[in-house]
Amino acid sequence: MTDSTSPAPNDSNTSVAELKKLVDDFVGQRDWHQFHSPKNLAMALAVEAAELMEHFQWIEVADSREVANHPEKLAAAAEEIADVLSYTLAIANSLGVDLSETIHAKMVKNAQKYPADSFRGRHGGE
Amino acid sequence: MTDSTSPAPNDSNTSVAELKKLVDDFVGQRDWHQFHSPKNLAMALAVEAAELMEHFQWIEVADSREVANHPEKLAAAAEEIADVLSYTLAIANSLGVDLSETIHAKMVKNAQKYPADSFRGRHGGE
Amino acid sequence: MTDSTSPAPNDSNTSVAELKKLVDDFVGQRDWHQFHSPKNLAMALAVEAAELMEHFQWIEVADSREVANHPEKLAAAAEEIADVLSYTLAIANSLGVDLSETIHAKMVKNAQKYPADSFRGRHGGE
Amino acid sequence: MTDSTSPAPNDSNTSVAELKKLVDDFVGQRDWHQFHSPKNLAMALAVEAAELMEHFQWIEVADSREVANHPEKLAAAAEEIADVLSYTLAIANSLGVDLSETIHAKMVKNAQKYPADSFRGRHGGE
Repeated sequence: MTDSTSPAPNDSNTSVAELKKLVDDFVGQRDWHQFHSPKNLAMALAVEAAELMEHFQWIEVADSREVANHPEKLAAAAEEIADVLSYTLAIANSLGVDLSETIHAKMVKNAQKYPADSFRGRHGGE
Repeated sequence: MTDSTSPAPNDSNTSVAELKKLVDDFVGQRDWHQFHSPKNLAMALAVEAAELMEHFQWIEVADSREVANHPEKLAAAAEEIADVLSYTLAIANSLGVDLSETIHAKMVKNAQKYPADSFRGRHGGE
Repeated sequence: MTDSTSPAPNDSNTSVAELKKLVDDFVGQRDWHQFHSPKNLAMALAVEAAELMEHFQWIEVADSREVANHPEKLAAAAEEIADVLSYTLAIANSLGVDLSETIHAKMVKNAQKYPADSFRGRHGGE
Repeated sequence: MTDSTSPAPNDSNTSVAELKKLVDDFVGQRDWHQFHSPKNLAMALAVEAAELMEHFQWIEVADSREVANHPEKLAAAAEEIADVLSYTLAIANSLGVDLSETIHAKMVKNAQKYPADSFRGRHGGE
């Protein structure tokens, strides 16, 4: 995919479209698009989100921040985050959703729902 | 964030780092980093994954593909996908994870676990 | 279902089979068994589990215990727990699973996996 | 727990309170109540719901019903259902919720929200 002179991929030099293609190629090479309906992918995404959560389920909120300083635990959590992202990209692929456009639009909506001045320091959720 | 001459953001012209910053700025402007521990964000991500799943829970697998052709349902699902992505980016921000690097590494691992030749047309999961 | 002289149902005077029947009658009266496949019910159960989780997602672990002392928050959480239980009973109904038998057998297995002496005060999960 | 003359526990001869006690004794014997906050238990419950869902994620809706006829797959799914039920009972224990009373009250509310006549054959969810 990259020749020896390409820089290694990182978040600054990689577009969302490149990650979508990475996932789509993987799926296509295995003829897995037949399983990749939005229904099945939404389930798979929720399963991966739960696997990520499992790393934090019995620990205190403050201790979960410490995972960033523990290379082995961090690598394990990062891998689950990658799995969540893979299925997020796959479901966007399956429905033809432009993620960057959608997230920008959603952030505008969120900013109206949670104006910075009235929600500063107050969480918005239930 | 963009002046009137900037092209609208889309998956081809937007880097993963730009989306991470979009989310991080939103969180910072509301002083919400205090709530954004990995534990809480993993929960929020699982909640959003469930909200996405809700759109598909009572329908047939084949009908879930049809959502792509139904603008109103598609917009509703796309918004949930954006919420999932927002928390995926937020948890990557909270732990300092480079998503592009991690997903590339995970795909190499997945390719070893599910060789294209032996898994073609056979799903890999349980 | 109960005449005026029946005691109100509570956990001491109610069998698991009675709750299974309560849910099954509700489903049957609406001709919903057609939607109650194990796949759909597992999704619905995960959605309800997420709705329960939402009540606790931004708060500290210790504060989540305080919900027991706050009647309004407790009633809201209890209702989500009832929803989770309803779908647990529905999936047991759909697959013909005896929950009491299965949970007793699982507890024997758990006791072997987590012997009380070696796991006292140490959580078993990841 | 039972002497040789007790009947084996099943859903007809077991009260909800007996299952709550089974779980509570297991937790107490390991001094795990310290981990069993509603927040942590809601996470654990969502994780178990996802593990149950995993058994059905790549298959068709109709095929998920066939799991009932496949002893090995059924036993595996039943065990996940028992895990979900265990955490449902544990969270009810942690908050002091009477499940039978709550589910009866919720079913009355559901019957008002989804009158049998207008929802017959039409699922109620999104």
